[in-house]
Amino acid sequence: MPAAPTAAPLHEVPISLGDRSYPIHIGAALLSDPATWAAVPPSTQALIVTNSTVAPLYAARLEQALEARHKAVHIVALPDGEEHKNWQTLNLIFDALLENACDRRTVLYALGGGVVGDMTGFAAASYMRGVPFVQVPTTLLAQVDSSVGGKTAINHPVGKNMIGAFYQPRLVVCDLDTLATLPAREFSAGLAEIIKYGPISDMALLDWLEAHIDRLMGRETALVAHAVRRSCEIKAWVVGQDEREAGLRAILNFGHTFGHAIEAGLGYGQWLHGEAVGCGMVMALHLSRRLGFVDAPFVERVTALLRKAGLPTVGPALGASRYLELMRVDKKAEGGEIKFVVIDRPGSAAVRGAPDALVREVIEHCCRPE
Amino acid sequence: MPAAPTAAPLHEVPISLGDRSYPIHIGAALLSDPATWAAVPPSTQALIVTNSTVAPLYAARLEQALEARHKAVHIVALPDGEEHKNWQTLNLIFDALLENACDRRTVLYALGGGVVGDMTGFAAASYMRGVPFVQVPTTLLAQVDSSVGGKTAINHPVGKNMIGAFYQPRLVVCDLDTLATLPAREFSAGLAEIIKYGPISDMALLDWLEAHIDRLMGRETALVAHAVRRSCEIKAWVVGQDEREAGLRAILNFGHTFGHAIEAGLGYGQWLHGEAVGCGMVMALHLSRRLGFVDAPFVERVTALLRKAGLPTVGPALGASRYLELMRVDKKAEGGEIKFVVIDRPGSAAVRGAPDALVREVIEHCCRPE
Repeated sequence: MPAAPTAAPLHEVPISLGDRSYPIHIGAALLSDPATWAAVPPSTQALIVTNSTVAPLYAARLEQALEARHKAVHIVALPDGEEHKNWQTLNLIFDALLENACDRRTVLYALGGGVVGDMTGFAAASYMRGVPFVQVPTTLLAQVDSSVGGKTAINHPVGKNMIGAFYQPRLVVCDLDTLATLPAREFSAGLAEIIKYGPISDMALLDWLEAHIDRLMGRETALVAHAVRRSCEIKAWVVGQDEREAGLRAILNFGHTFGHAIEAGLGYGQWLHGEAVGCGMVMALHLSRRLGFVDAPFVERVTALLRKAGLPTVGPALGASRYLELMRVDKKAEGGEIKFVVIDRPGSAAVRGAPDALVREVIEHCCRPE
Repeated sequence: MPAAPTAAPLHEVPISLGDRSYPIHIGAALLSDPATWAAVPPSTQALIVTNSTVAPLYAARLEQALEARHKAVHIVALPDGEEHKNWQTLNLIFDALLENACDRRTVLYALGGGVVGDMTGFAAASYMRGVPFVQVPTTLLAQVDSSVGGKTAINHPVGKNMIGAFYQPRLVVCDLDTLATLPAREFSAGLAEIIKYGPISDMALLDWLEAHIDRLMGRETALVAHAVRRSCEIKAWVVGQDEREAGLRAILNFGHTFGHAIEAGLGYGQWLHGEAVGCGMVMALHLSRRLGFVDAPFVERVTALLRKAGLPTVGPALGASRYLELMRVDKKAEGGEIKFVVIDRPGSAAVRGAPDALVREVIEHCCRPE
């Protein structure tokens, strides 16, 4: 018998959540190998949810690999972009499921970035009150963050991810080959979320990233694999402690309170999510410094790394009042008080309130007038 | 100190679902008594979701009682009717929550019938990925069925309750006083779901209903209280065994496969849900008889009780092919095969497939041409 092409994952990271546990597979050439999908629950039908950019690149490859697993594999390609992460687009998934009379064993595959993953996950959580789904993230950001942990959502005009569910996938497959086609700006946006794991929980990772940022920017597979693995391990540990964000999990939102305000204030899709989070991290670091938790050299160190990763580190000048207004509808806010994820010492994060005046100073310091 | 008005519930039925357990309170004068709401999680804000019919009758009463529990109580009144159980109406709830900058401790109160309860529950499941909610059913049908057990959903144009979540309330309050304003047709629709519990699990209840149907139709409080309590007890037992409808719980859908086809075929809102289910039960009984499980006198006995409860027992003539097409998208269908809840012996139900030809015979026998 001729040797079959092997696509054993380079790394496997388990997510331990009792009967909702699942593995993350990280490696090359995973997508087109039927063996990758052997653990997916059997079903007659499957629906690949992707977007108009990713579909021509990878949908046929996945479709072919899935034909061994499902009798009928349907594809729906959503319009690409954060600005389409809404009801109208979500309904395209439900329409595709119902047009094909998909039953409640049907498996959904999210093939794309964070927007595709979040919408497919929420559709899977809601279709017939829950069908199985698999994350197949094709962007660096989705591989290290949004595809792991079961947060799914769509946006509302006044706030990001306001409508969604905690709903775990059955499997996450990070095929590093799909990063080859990722635009530079999106690769950098993914690096922002990887860098995030340093200040909040792992200074060794921050050291490693500083030492290897040039080779990472060159997309060397072994280095990208390590960065993805380590990010997933940290996220897996946090999510395993606090699946539904009652406490600890909120630290993963470092940079997100300011970041969401940037995205909503400019209109979704102007800045990439990772870009907004990277810049939001700079702002949250300055807030941490003003609260007395970290010193200026630490702020500068992380800022420099973000800059080397090709990320913007100066925020848009929306005005401090507009920032505050946008942040007050953040999901972490309670009784009108904005909650920030701050670095309380290098490698450790905490959720804190802060006086408006201090937040205003940070915004004015970190944002450049147009 | 003057004696406070007492509104101790006549009955309390516990729903046992581990950390998602909650009680159902059944009694008179519960709505306006602040003590009724003492067990609700504390929060600054609350949103009463109701509809344009119920709002002028009961919203102010509930609002006043809740003022002891929440600093700000908002109200949103949805358009009334099954035909509004869709995305557009659901968004009115999200809009109200976001306009008032409601945080994720905000408690939602569903004040109304099954449509209000199902939509409020799904909104609570999805807003910020989950906020607490309370069911305050004001129709008989909602009190004995839809408010209990955590099924929430909206309709899709091609199928009922296709998009939703399993999400448990923190408390269910059935104030029997609210039934005083219920139109006769809706009261009968509620009786359909009560009668349902007889053939599927409790022949003693069926006997009791036959003996007391006239006094029930007269809405005698003690009798209605017993019927609501017994219905909730049976539903609580079934849901406690099988929260997410992996098996047993499906028996609660007796009459619903045919019933949903009637509702979708005529257009939602033409027949009330309980009317469609009552008629669907007659059809499912005839199917059970043709499958050899029950005899003709049993079918006639249940049909006669439904008739005495003021319910239609002859289906609309949509044509057998249309019925079959509509039933194939039912959530219980698997791989295109329609699953029916049949009575396999009086007081016991099971989920079964059936030959199309047999189903066609049943439809032709049970439906009258226009």
